[in-house]
Amino acid sequence: MNYKINKLETASICLVPGFFASGVASGIKPLRKADLALVYSLRPLSVAGVFTRNAVKGDSLLYTQALLQAGTKPQALLINSGNANACVGEAGMQDARHMAATVAAALNIPTEAVLLGSTGVIGQRLPMGKVEPGIRAAVDALEMSVEAGHAAMRAIMTTDTVPKEEAVRVEFTSGNDDGAAGLDNADYLNFTIAGMAKGSGMIHPNMATMIGVITTDAPVSQSLLQEALSLVTSRTFNRTSVDGDMSVCDMVLLLNSAEDSLTDSLDSELGQAFVAALESVCTDLARAIARDGEGASRLINVVIDGAASENDAYLTALSIARSPLVKTAVFGADANWGRILTAAGYSGASFDPRKVDVWIGDVICCQDGAALDFDESLAKLAMQQDEITLRVDLKAGSYSDHYWTCDFSHDYVTINGSYRS
Amino acid sequence: MNYKINKLETASICLVPGFFASGVASGIKPLRKADLALVYSLRPLSVAGVFTRNAVKGDSLLYTQALLQAGTKPQALLINSGNANACVGEAGMQDARHMAATVAAALNIPTEAVLLGSTGVIGQRLPMGKVEPGIRAAVDALEMSVEAGHAAMRAIMTTDTVPKEEAVRVEFTSGNDDGAAGLDNADYLNFTIAGMAKGSGMIHPNMATMIGVITTDAPVSQSLLQEALSLVTSRTFNRTSVDGDMSVCDMVLLLNSAEDSLTDSLDSELGQAFVAALESVCTDLARAIARDGEGASRLINVVIDGAASENDAYLTALSIARSPLVKTAVFGADANWGRILTAAGYSGASFDPRKVDVWIGDVICCQDGAALDFDESLAKLAMQQDEITLRVDLKAGSYSDHYWTCDFSHDYVTINGSYRS
Repeated sequence: MNYKINKLETASICLVPGFFASGVASGIKPLRKADLALVYSLRPLSVAGVFTRNAVKGDSLLYTQALLQAGTKPQALLINSGNANACVGEAGMQDARHMAATVAAALNIPTEAVLLGSTGVIGQRLPMGKVEPGIRAAVDALEMSVEAGHAAMRAIMTTDTVPKEEAVRVEFTSGNDDGAAGLDNADYLNFTIAGMAKGSGMIHPNMATMIGVITTDAPVSQSLLQEALSLVTSRTFNRTSVDGDMSVCDMVLLLNSAEDSLTDSLDSELGQAFVAALESVCTDLARAIARDGEGASRLINVVIDGAASENDAYLTALSIARSPLVKTAVFGADANWGRILTAAGYSGASFDPRKVDVWIGDVICCQDGAALDFDESLAKLAMQQDEITLRVDLKAGSYSDHYWTCDFSHDYVTINGSYRS
Repeated sequence: MNYKINKLETASICLVPGFFASGVASGIKPLRKADLALVYSLRPLSVAGVFTRNAVKGDSLLYTQALLQAGTKPQALLINSGNANACVGEAGMQDARHMAATVAAALNIPTEAVLLGSTGVIGQRLPMGKVEPGIRAAVDALEMSVEAGHAAMRAIMTTDTVPKEEAVRVEFTSGNDDGAAGLDNADYLNFTIAGMAKGSGMIHPNMATMIGVITTDAPVSQSLLQEALSLVTSRTFNRTSVDGDMSVCDMVLLLNSAEDSLTDSLDSELGQAFVAALESVCTDLARAIARDGEGASRLINVVIDGAASENDAYLTALSIARSPLVKTAVFGADANWGRILTAAGYSGASFDPRKVDVWIGDVICCQDGAALDFDESLAKLAMQQDEITLRVDLKAGSYSDHYWTCDFSHDYVTINGSYRS
């Protein structure tokens, strides 16, 4: 058999059969902005999760993490934005339990079937008097429609300027080389993966970065679900940086409505198709997060080749993607490649500075560690595009890595100088 | 004996007997701005140095590092600003040798008695046709005056907005407890330490940060000179961050004109006085660098207490001092203590998040990991001062550390979006 991954033009987590969603304004945020997102399934779901590695963790996140560890089969996920439920003392866990119980009562499902997420300013207690009626309104608003998925997306946004939703449909066809696989089987294998994500500032690797909800109906086991999410996260969300800061509340949940599992192996054809499709969705979401970085005007794609080790490739990409000097140079479209080389130099990676090549877009600026007499106007033009690739070839080995980030602008400073105001 | 460290109101590296200096405009920089600084001594000096740990290193720096390793006794130090002599291929080392030879010929000293420093944009070759006559002008301009030290200071500045010069005079007096020490001996021990430093952007620890020149006439050995400089640097210049970037050219040199050495022990009274005086000068220079960070409007003093280990204290201070979200919050005088706690959380340090206290100035905002109902106006007022202390008590042990940094402003972005233009 063969498979094709088709990117869907309109995306919504409700494109996956079995998922209801809603988004309402409960009053946590001012100006009647949506701040409660609810996802619901009539049937228990299997679920995988990745969570912030920050030592400080929000209570809603800790609550969800404990349920996943206990092997819960959830039916609902409530995410609030506005105030993160974090750093408010004992009240945080009390509020988490109370929100879950309120959702469970309204949906008539067990409390342990309710997962929670939370994002926003930390250290301010959620107004339960507003959240409670908000939850009932969110339950009333549940729908199994594309628009309902969009509403949930809007309800998890904080400083995001655009919604971020992606979806793919995976279709299997009988290959000529394998007559044994009938079309019926292929139809049964077809599945959808859809995702939504928020995250704009305080974005940095190790799931410190964002809230993501991905839905699927792929017939894969729970263990494969978790294995695939961890693998794909390491290549996508954990390769995204806006400012190097890492929040305490953020997580990606992968919810699966499929009743049956046909595989629990990453190496099976279905397992491979699932990982490839999941990576496609997560790549697009991760790039959308970097592109929508607070105040960002363009997406920076940092590419490292020729590193002596996997870790050296990672360290070099990370160092360049975090450098405020590189990011401000891109903002100003100033082809100051020396800053790229400098950031590589302090990354901790081992390489010979007299061998390194540096590229800005298609323009090689530095060869064997020395300046070239390159066309500045071409490099400037490359830096003025919506997306710019900065590539470093360390010529020390055969390892590669990448990182997505954005430029650093005046607006970043404005947004973050008065986030709470 | 006792000693007193007196900070001098007017500072200049020429306050130390034996040092000549000058600063001239050779034409590396446009608009006839000073770009060549020369320091000279009639007698050979002993010297200590600390250098960038960036894997990429400038050629003038490599040239100087090699001379120090060979145990040279220098008489002159030439520093250029404008273009850093880095990443220009083989030409960089040729130009370094040529500059040293030109200085040596003009001063009639051995070539190996000439040290070099360089700072500015990397990857652009220095214009030797301008530097050569510039060196001769700098030699002609040498003077042993306070004003000559100021001129050298101005000639090493890049995006610095203010000169940074500090000096102390150490005076020994016979203590009542030790009649054996006569006044003659005390007079002989008295010495001066004076320093100048540049550095405004691309400032981060491990001597990646700046150029510093410190002069002294303390009767200490060469080994003590190096030991003291390394120790004091770890507590001062390496605890200073503007943007987390680390340049390839920067170094601190400590030049000693004393003919005799009375001690080579840090533990001797003279050794202790020397370290204390050196730390006083370097602390003031380091804080001046943080305060003059590109676009900075205030100095941030990050203080960590109660860490479980020395490294945990360091990591936590570093993480908070590097956080763009903390730095933009201080720019906006927004008492968003959650960002301070968040940065502590992703620092890698071990602590119990339910025990941490966070202070903004004198206002405790978070106790035992939970928000307090603090007076926002008082915290805002603290953040509007020229200098603001952010203190975190991890309550995990007894180690402390500190870090100096500055806020992140619109002007930082403006300055660095078009540095080369």
